[in-house]
Amino acid sequence: MRQVVMYKPGDVRVEERADPTIIEPTDAIIRLAATCICGSDLWPYRGAEPVDHQVMGHEYVGVVEQVGSEVRTVQVGDFVVGSFWASDNTCDICRAGYQAYCVHRVLMGAIGTQAEMARIPLADGTLVATPGQPDPELIPSLMAASDVLGTGWFAAVAAEAGPGKTVAVVGDGAVGLLGVLAARQLGAERIIAFSRHADRQALAREFGATDIVAERGDAGVAAVKELTGGLGAHSVIEAVGTQQAMMQAIHSTRPGGHVGFVGVSHDVAIPGDELFMAGVHIHGGPAPVRRFLPELIQLIWDRTIDPGKVFDLTLPLDRAAEGYQAMDQRTATKVLLTV
Amino acid sequence: MRQVVMYKPGDVRVEERADPTIIEPTDAIIRLAATCICGSDLWPYRGAEPVDHQVMGHEYVGVVEQVGSEVRTVQVGDFVVGSFWASDNTCDICRAGYQAYCVHRVLMGAIGTQAEMARIPLADGTLVATPGQPDPELIPSLMAASDVLGTGWFAAVAAEAGPGKTVAVVGDGAVGLLGVLAARQLGAERIIAFSRHADRQALAREFGATDIVAERGDAGVAAVKELTGGLGAHSVIEAVGTQQAMMQAIHSTRPGGHVGFVGVSHDVAIPGDELFMAGVHIHGGPAPVRRFLPELIQLIWDRTIDPGKVFDLTLPLDRAAEGYQAMDQRTATKVLLTV
Repeated sequence: MRQVVMYKPGDVRVEERADPTIIEPTDAIIRLAATCICGSDLWPYRGAEPVDHQVMGHEYVGVVEQVGSEVRTVQVGDFVVGSFWASDNTCDICRAGYQAYCVHRVLMGAIGTQAEMARIPLADGTLVATPGQPDPELIPSLMAASDVLGTGWFAAVAAEAGPGKTVAVVGDGAVGLLGVLAARQLGAERIIAFSRHADRQALAREFGATDIVAERGDAGVAAVKELTGGLGAHSVIEAVGTQQAMMQAIHSTRPGGHVGFVGVSHDVAIPGDELFMAGVHIHGGPAPVRRFLPELIQLIWDRTIDPGKVFDLTLPLDRAAEGYQAMDQRTATKVLLTV
Repeated sequence: MRQVVMYKPGDVRVEERADPTIIEPTDAIIRLAATCICGSDLWPYRGAEPVDHQVMGHEYVGVVEQVGSEVRTVQVGDFVVGSFWASDNTCDICRAGYQAYCVHRVLMGAIGTQAEMARIPLADGTLVATPGQPDPELIPSLMAASDVLGTGWFAAVAAEAGPGKTVAVVGDGAVGLLGVLAARQLGAERIIAFSRHADRQALAREFGATDIVAERGDAGVAAVKELTGGLGAHSVIEAVGTQQAMMQAIHSTRPGGHVGFVGVSHDVAIPGDELFMAGVHIHGGPAPVRRFLPELIQLIWDRTIDPGKVFDLTLPLDRAAEGYQAMDQRTATKVLLTV
């Protein structure tokens, strides 16, 4: 099969590799319908994380081709969606809704799903079958559920977005934009999107943003305060992962409010005294996407939400390198790779 | 009247000052029955915060002696308990339960309640009257409600202590010990107290601790993990305010669990990547004690809880300097000053 490999920063290739096989009786093998490139894949691409001949990708949708002897909940032929952490979905941590921290978790990025096929460990706990074979136009949205939608949704839940709430969203990448969509679905009254790009502002509005703030940092915080009677937002989503974004999120939140953060933290340090004085709740980390998959798949299946709109470039797997380049140069927000 | 003044670090005196008077029509004047010395008063005493002829004290119980023309909910003669932030209890922030961040808040420490009398701003929003004149043996517990009990209670609520939960408590000072008591009252199944002092371990057990861990830092985290099947506690209270205590709290918490922090942060910085990977909720800051006062007063009035036990030294106001010295040298956990 063909598989994407990052040789070194900036050097992405598609190679011929051996087809995956069942290793554990709880494994499944899927043939991918689509995969995609994640914002977090740009960290090694840009040299901000070490990389050396690494298989890439952790997002996937596709059809089950083979199952191990202990797999019970998915069958050969099912169309399935899974998350970037394989999880047993039965341990105490999973049952509390934190499948990204399952005691038996396996990182899908180490297996690499930017490929024609992939082995999915803990298939029963990890994969969720769609109600039937999806229409082709649903593939991008189901693909989004695998990570960016699930992550934006988790951020909105962590920020306790809901009826009567004002939600602010730091970050206008795919996750931030889908945080807007999630806040809307969760019933938020007002949604303030931080963005300075016209195309992303337009998508934010389409997903439910009621206000756009172009300022960043202290000026961005001041703008949110002005829109909220001086108090700050009830709920703030942080979907960037930088010091400025984190502090902008904390300071945009009113005392007693909630920050949901899902940007992968790079060189972030939260000063204890500022957190103490802010009086906000903070919660985040790798999203337990599995918790939300059944609900998200149904919303997509029913055409209630259309998160696939975040993909603004679609390429065949063989042209993955172009996809990385486009995301790196910001000519694309999110790239779908067809398999 | 007599009032405690800290001239400089280590130099505490009791001076004659003018009696307070009504300034705003929403003020009340109280004659204190008791006041006390807070762990946070030790920061300037030890030179860790600047201090220059500062009036001291922010905890108080006493009898209303005079009320302004707009005061409605307390009357002359009422025995009252208040918190260290005066608050209107009507703004959006107060109504959300965050009276320590009231948009009209006044810091009682700037007024100084280690004194015979004190002016209480925003009396209607700040003071809660007891059901009647308290028996003398209830005074220490009502005094505790003014800050240390309310703060420990908030920490336990912020950590989401409750039925079926394992709660760990970092810090065996008055607030940590009362965090144990609060966790017990809130129904926690198991309470692990970090302490290496026999007398504090004994009081922790009396307040409801089921396990004592003497280790700190990584060894302390390992001990909690061992007691919780490798997962960590559901809820952790941080009642110290140092980097070691904060990281010990975060790392002792299972993914998806909750850290409630109320130690006043000094030189603490939380690494974003560690917080991201931990997957915990963090919430804390100055406790909105006013939120809990009616409930806490009733629990004390009914003799359900006896938080006054944290006071292990009682001195008359005139001997305040001895009280500071005892807390600084750790020969006392918490000092009550009778007025």
